[in-house]
Amino acid sequence: MGKVIIIGAGGVATVAAHKVAKNADVFSEIMIASRTKSKCDAIVKAIGNPAIKTAQVDADNVDELTALFDAFKPDLVMNLALPYQDLTIMEACLKSGVSYLDTANYEPRDVAHFEYSWQWAFKERFEQAGLTAILGCGFDPGVTSIYTAYAAKHHFKEIQYLDIVDCNAGNHHKAFATNFNPEINIREITQKGQYWEDGKWVETEPLEIHKTLTYPNVGPRESYLLHHEEIESLVKNYPTIRRARFWMTFGEEYLTHLRVIQNIGMAGIEPINYEGHQIVPLQFLKAVLPNPQDLGANYDGETSIGCRIRGIGKDGKEHTYYVYNNCSHQAAYEETGMQGVSYTTGVPATIGARLFMLGLWKRPGVWNVEEFDPDPFMDELNKQGLPWHELHDCDLEL
Amino acid sequence: MGKVIIIGAGGVATVAAHKVAKNADVFSEIMIASRTKSKCDAIVKAIGNPAIKTAQVDADNVDELTALFDAFKPDLVMNLALPYQDLTIMEACLKSGVSYLDTANYEPRDVAHFEYSWQWAFKERFEQAGLTAILGCGFDPGVTSIYTAYAAKHHFKEIQYLDIVDCNAGNHHKAFATNFNPEINIREITQKGQYWEDGKWVETEPLEIHKTLTYPNVGPRESYLLHHEEIESLVKNYPTIRRARFWMTFGEEYLTHLRVIQNIGMAGIEPINYEGHQIVPLQFLKAVLPNPQDLGANYDGETSIGCRIRGIGKDGKEHTYYVYNNCSHQAAYEETGMQGVSYTTGVPATIGARLFMLGLWKRPGVWNVEEFDPDPFMDELNKQGLPWHELHDCDLEL
Repeated sequence: MGKVIIIGAGGVATVAAHKVAKNADVFSEIMIASRTKSKCDAIVKAIGNPAIKTAQVDADNVDELTALFDAFKPDLVMNLALPYQDLTIMEACLKSGVSYLDTANYEPRDVAHFEYSWQWAFKERFEQAGLTAILGCGFDPGVTSIYTAYAAKHHFKEIQYLDIVDCNAGNHHKAFATNFNPEINIREITQKGQYWEDGKWVETEPLEIHKTLTYPNVGPRESYLLHHEEIESLVKNYPTIRRARFWMTFGEEYLTHLRVIQNIGMAGIEPINYEGHQIVPLQFLKAVLPNPQDLGANYDGETSIGCRIRGIGKDGKEHTYYVYNNCSHQAAYEETGMQGVSYTTGVPATIGARLFMLGLWKRPGVWNVEEFDPDPFMDELNKQGLPWHELHDCDLEL
Repeated sequence: MGKVIIIGAGGVATVAAHKVAKNADVFSEIMIASRTKSKCDAIVKAIGNPAIKTAQVDADNVDELTALFDAFKPDLVMNLALPYQDLTIMEACLKSGVSYLDTANYEPRDVAHFEYSWQWAFKERFEQAGLTAILGCGFDPGVTSIYTAYAAKHHFKEIQYLDIVDCNAGNHHKAFATNFNPEINIREITQKGQYWEDGKWVETEPLEIHKTLTYPNVGPRESYLLHHEEIESLVKNYPTIRRARFWMTFGEEYLTHLRVIQNIGMAGIEPINYEGHQIVPLQFLKAVLPNPQDLGANYDGETSIGCRIRGIGKDGKEHTYYVYNNCSHQAAYEETGMQGVSYTTGVPATIGARLFMLGLWKRPGVWNVEEFDPDPFMDELNKQGLPWHELHDCDLEL
């Protein structure tokens, strides 16, 4: 049992708050804090549990965070705010003696650059403070890393080829909308791609490499190779991996919109002077686009995310393995008021927090999720709404 | 001979200033005034004639305009600012006793709505003041209306079918840019279309009607039916016209960009609240897009704009007639530093002002250009850089 504070009041935080509230056996007290307190209050109202506390906090401000943590005295901070704020929240956790969990790696505001080094640099300080930091505990990163750890523990002596495949086959019936924070989404996709092969990173032009992959219960979808942060820690923790790649599906219309958004300069992250105000085009675009949290009501279809693995099995022979989850946008919306993309991130964060509270995932230092025992997490996935399926010796298409 | 003031410092104003300076036989003194005086000074520097005066003025502000006119005492105001400002400038002209010329009809900022009624309402006041107002003296409206008047005067007893065809076959080698003020351009194109047939307006969905037309020295180009303001006055002044339409060419990529700009909400003209500031998405987009005035240096290809007319000739038989101009972007740039779209608007404005100064186009009231004698204007077009060509009894494709 322990006290938890959720930072953030977006789609993922909303899902996590619903789920944390349902795990009352391990969470003794819950607080939701964000820049806008009224959003936190709205989540509490939707959950219908007035015992959940709320607070206003600027997650960019270490002093404000520290003051809040010192007052509420949580055992764990679930950082479900923006990836820009990972470092300030980790800093405040160290100052206040609180453990930490997040779902996406730190990214500086002024340059779209995804790597773990900034957060891994906190390792010794968390160790010395006797505090746990669990990094990347969403779906991808998160469940995909745990799938890999599970495959390594039970099915493979050597994982050699890993392809993480992320398909959103949902339809929100809008001309254009992003499924999560459009600023973060567009920064991610307009980046150069990269993958790991033979001990080094291979860089690609943005969306340069793509192929048609077939997803369970969905069918064929064009899938694009992106850089994704979990590859960075997985190839470190599983050095037998010869090649690790991340694929995400995009529709043609989505990519056309994205191309135009770049062509017209609205994906820019450098501020421009507009009538005396410094305005970042991408942030202004975010304000004009539909709010991803409002997509849920008309969202149908499902997501399908998993790991396709090839390597040497426990029997010394080559095997393939595909482990995945399909999540229905409608079911997610009915349970939490949010669509599947928020749901698949918020539920794993809750499971990570649960395992921390149970002492199963508690160890001083800074850890990626594959460094903990995957078994209790895999059990919880089936119980908490993200059941998984596995195929052995199947055609991986890759 | 007379004194002229040019309001505006964009591409069209720059071209007009160059051309007015070359018509020193009729313009005794020249002033350029705009919101940003440094832009006016830059134009004077480019022309290299330090006798041209400059001034700062807010064209939305009648009092500021009146004070400027009272001080400089121009005979004619050439309004080459935004169409939003037509009414304030006309009002100031009446107060100061100055004649008026513009190139585009008034349009309210808050609703994209193009019609002459607002400006025609000034007719009696200009008549009573003994002042001339010349409306729509650019290329289209402007030269296209004069082409029609010329056809009616010399070739047709009855014009029955009029198709104005506007092709920009230039290439600015940018992923996306508009050829004139993007705000005005996008407002125009995203409007519903309309044309005149059998005594009434027929409305179409935006860009609903299109067909391939062949342009001289250019070839076939997909052409889209738009509403354009000159149709409104031409069907009034030539009541024998059974059908009058306006066509403009767009490339597929341009239309894709336009569709996305609308889908993502960036064509919106309603302000949104962004961090406490009221910002109109389309105006912000304008600030992010390339400035049309900067396109000239790499612009190649040409424009081709004309009138395709069918009706009963002076001989009582059915005839067709096609009168047009082709304008090279490079030649326009070399002469004035601006591309062809600015050039084809700024030159006719200068010719209108010249004819006013010569007393040939001077008559109390508010007039569309086809209500004046087209012959001296047609002569000047050949002399001032926009030579025209005509085809008789040709295939109009329409």
